[in-house]
Amino acid sequence: MVRINVGCDLAYEVRSPTVFLFQIVAASNSYQKVILEELKLNPQLNVERFQIGMAGNQLQRVVVDPCDFQVSYRGTVELTPQTQNSNSIGESPISQTPAEVLTYLNPSRYCESDLLSRFAFEEFGQLYPGYSRVQAICNWVFEQLDYTPGSTISTTTAADVLLQRTGVCRDYAHLAIALCRGLGIPARYVAGYALNLQPPDFHGFMEAFLDGQWYLFDPTRLTSTLGLVRIGTGRDAADVSVATITGNSLLTQQSVWATLASKNNDPPDDGTGSSAVSTA
Amino acid sequence: MVRINVGCDLAYEVRSPTVFLFQIVAASNSYQKVILEELKLNPQLNVERFQIGMAGNQLQRVVVDPCDFQVSYRGTVELTPQTQNSNSIGESPISQTPAEVLTYLNPSRYCESDLLSRFAFEEFGQLYPGYSRVQAICNWVFEQLDYTPGSTISTTTAADVLLQRTGVCRDYAHLAIALCRGLGIPARYVAGYALNLQPPDFHGFMEAFLDGQWYLFDPTRLTSTLGLVRIGTGRDAADVSVATITGNSLLTQQSVWATLASKNNDPPDDGTGSSAVSTA
Amino acid sequence: MVRINVGCDLAYEVRSPTVFLFQIVAASNSYQKVILEELKLNPQLNVERFQIGMAGNQLQRVVVDPCDFQVSYRGTVELTPQTQNSNSIGESPISQTPAEVLTYLNPSRYCESDLLSRFAFEEFGQLYPGYSRVQAICNWVFEQLDYTPGSTISTTTAADVLLQRTGVCRDYAHLAIALCRGLGIPARYVAGYALNLQPPDFHGFMEAFLDGQWYLFDPTRLTSTLGLVRIGTGRDAADVSVATITGNSLLTQQSVWATLASKNNDPPDDGTGSSAVSTA
Amino acid sequence: MVRINVGCDLAYEVRSPTVFLFQIVAASNSYQKVILEELKLNPQLNVERFQIGMAGNQLQRVVVDPCDFQVSYRGTVELTPQTQNSNSIGESPISQTPAEVLTYLNPSRYCESDLLSRFAFEEFGQLYPGYSRVQAICNWVFEQLDYTPGSTISTTTAADVLLQRTGVCRDYAHLAIALCRGLGIPARYVAGYALNLQPPDFHGFMEAFLDGQWYLFDPTRLTSTLGLVRIGTGRDAADVSVATITGNSLLTQQSVWATLASKNNDPPDDGTGSSAVSTA
Repeated sequence: MVRINVGCDLAYEVRSPTVFLFQIVAASNSYQKVILEELKLNPQLNVERFQIGMAGNQLQRVVVDPCDFQVSYRGTVELTPQTQNSNSIGESPISQTPAEVLTYLNPSRYCESDLLSRFAFEEFGQLYPGYSRVQAICNWVFEQLDYTPGSTISTTTAADVLLQRTGVCRDYAHLAIALCRGLGIPARYVAGYALNLQPPDFHGFMEAFLDGQWYLFDPTRLTSTLGLVRIGTGRDAADVSVATITGNSLLTQQSVWATLASKNNDPPDDGTGSSAVSTA
Repeated sequence: MVRINVGCDLAYEVRSPTVFLFQIVAASNSYQKVILEELKLNPQLNVERFQIGMAGNQLQRVVVDPCDFQVSYRGTVELTPQTQNSNSIGESPISQTPAEVLTYLNPSRYCESDLLSRFAFEEFGQLYPGYSRVQAICNWVFEQLDYTPGSTISTTTAADVLLQRTGVCRDYAHLAIALCRGLGIPARYVAGYALNLQPPDFHGFMEAFLDGQWYLFDPTRLTSTLGLVRIGTGRDAADVSVATITGNSLLTQQSVWATLASKNNDPPDDGTGSSAVSTA
Repeated sequence: MVRINVGCDLAYEVRSPTVFLFQIVAASNSYQKVILEELKLNPQLNVERFQIGMAGNQLQRVVVDPCDFQVSYRGTVELTPQTQNSNSIGESPISQTPAEVLTYLNPSRYCESDLLSRFAFEEFGQLYPGYSRVQAICNWVFEQLDYTPGSTISTTTAADVLLQRTGVCRDYAHLAIALCRGLGIPARYVAGYALNLQPPDFHGFMEAFLDGQWYLFDPTRLTSTLGLVRIGTGRDAADVSVATITGNSLLTQQSVWATLASKNNDPPDDGTGSSAVSTA
Repeated sequence: MVRINVGCDLAYEVRSPTVFLFQIVAASNSYQKVILEELKLNPQLNVERFQIGMAGNQLQRVVVDPCDFQVSYRGTVELTPQTQNSNSIGESPISQTPAEVLTYLNPSRYCESDLLSRFAFEEFGQLYPGYSRVQAICNWVFEQLDYTPGSTISTTTAADVLLQRTGVCRDYAHLAIALCRGLGIPARYVAGYALNLQPPDFHGFMEAFLDGQWYLFDPTRLTSTLGLVRIGTGRDAADVSVATITGNSLLTQQSVWATLASKNNDPPDDGTGSSAVSTA
């Protein structure tokens, strides 16, 4: 069990009445438990909170008139990784994949698994199905790409990245997701906080559905999967923007953090080892 | 109120053990009621039925060993179009869009609204918001494109279609959906049956979310929107394939129909007029 | 007749032995005459000069060892626009297009006329063939696009620009070229200097082949076509880079100018009027 | 020395006045000599012949009124492969690449070397420069792609092919060309006849510029490079269409052949061995 303090401070210059949709609050589910949290707005405005999808994504909607606007979130999250020997984790046959998981086999805006299916089969089709195959995909993505901030834009897709061989965390995740789906392995995008990420920022990683559960992977290797805190999941980054802004507003400041909360817990170690991290 | 008999016969040559996921059964919801239906398989096999998403999509999953395999569906569906004067139907502000509808503002695999947003604003941004604006988009799509079977493939997207100016029903719908989303109007793809469609086939059309409801549009003008029977809805065609096939099987025959069930009802008339068709 | 002083100063930090291919020298041909020019390198190195293609592009090749390296070009160019009434200028039928011009009907890297041909015909196919049709294309490009520095990258194509509706001079030219070729009008990219361009920079514009001659167009309307000085022409911007650099070198400074040389000449006026500017 | 009889019969239904541009005649240059040839048209019409570019491409232009129209070409070509040990053939440094060759380093419509450069360096950057590196690229293309008629269309590019992993001869050539250019090796597309190609058709292959000469490569391995007869070369297939048709005409019949002319010559053997075939 690990406790992580996560949070962010966002400041906006709101120039016209603006609707904000935030996804910054840690998800609460069987794998991670939010034990303390606080969301503050300045000025104090009414916040509408709701959940979308089955994965527990929480959204906050706020309508803001022109002003200087700040949002602050602080949460303490308890992770209980149900680690197990990754060698024993197989793939779920399509005949047994739960209905709500099937959608994560479909291609999405930034994960064109329909275009990359053949590529995926040629590169990874011969590998033994299971956790290790998804790990092999993530290793390949890590090795093929150069992590280069600024090399991609918001409309860059997995196919673009496969060609240009550079990207940032969301691109790494998109490519790994597209390759998994191309092989028939359900995979989804996860936005979240990452323990001790350098430089501090929101992070994007992924989950693959194996043996009836979602397992976390981070092809960037920027942090341990044991220190990943989920905000929300979706088909790709389009579904889990930190802030969707309708109106004329400008982000003027952002700080994000995720630090170990309590010293008397086992420190998280490297998730690329033999223990797999799942979301029940 | 209109009663329509819909159905299809599909035959496959199954060459290796195959998992079929069918989406061919008419949806039952507040707008359309299935009053009779029958799904037959030959050979008779166990069918797993389930529903995905909130829009009532029904899927059938069957595992089939090598054989000649037929699926037949027959349904009688009662449509109760809640028509109203389309001029009075406005757009839903993002601040009031229900949580489960927000996802239909996001770009998807075949509807790259992120790429087309600027185009949409330049072409349709000045129009009065509401039903008439979506109708204007559909009219524009109808006028710009040539309906050309064979001109597109399964990976063709809205952006492709906007450039090449040809397509079939799914392409028309994808382009209209992408333009709607680009303007901030939630829009989704609908697969279904269409009354008296020539040549008979499954049909693809769309819904836009206006004034708190989903309204049907068909930019192809191949049939009246009053004769459209929904099978399922999704972000785009990727979500509502008639049959998703995992295994080595070949479609050998397909027939599809939708005909008026009872003569003593008002015949459906042209949906491009002033009455709008919604899904509650 | 107009005399224009053009020039540039470029400075590089050369970190490893580097081959530079420069295209910065004004072309000399029947339309524009270089009456004075000077190319200086610091340090003084051997320059290999050669011409490629039939349009008089001049290249300078220099091999440079690690150092601070400057290149300066100054030229005085006399333009003799063979203006004529643009209404009388028709298109050249393909049966009479000279052999060396045919290549400018083919699609190229940044001008996918094969993809945009149908679009071009739908939008401009009904217009009367000739100079005025090319002008209509340039007007349309000007009206549809927003001139937005930073909105495109070096790999952005005409199709991208048609969708995203923003770009800079090279994007404007690429789109107009692709639409011309799509209609069967030979068109090519021109890199050059532009009188009083603000902010000063190298400029990209285009030529269309009409009635047996090349005519200048600038869809950006940033300057008059009467003040455009050609450096080189090509299929698209790929062919006329200011500097092609093989090695590890960094541009550290660049200044570019084009000013009227002599006051007693007629000042150039607006090229969007009725007089056309050709290159014999 | 090898003598090959090449030829084609093409028949068109000409429905409106049509301009045909044919590229079907074997090129004559220092590497291959046309010793006999005949071009017949039925009906007999005036043919305008001209050459474009520096590589000896010959075009025939014919204006045809509505009729049934046949074109027949027969030629006997003598190939004098200047074979040499391929191990001794290096790459030409950019500082010594002739001016007219530089254009074949630029990206073109179907060979997006700008997009694939990074990919090329990661995959082939460590290999020893020279003939063997181009051969390694061709081997890789051969191994990665499946030769699948119908899997690509006329607008398919090298980047598309790299993702989808299927194609026909022109796609193989485009990909290999793009990868060569991405590494800084000039490469161009060649359309031609291929000895004993099965099924008989026009063929597309490539040349790379090495040690001051153009060398032939065929990544499809469908025939020996020793049996390749050039019609024309260009940046990619856009430049060397068999027939560019302006007007309403339909190809109704096509036959193409290339057979050994004289038995007393050495039969060509496998070009994938150690001897390289160049074009002086």
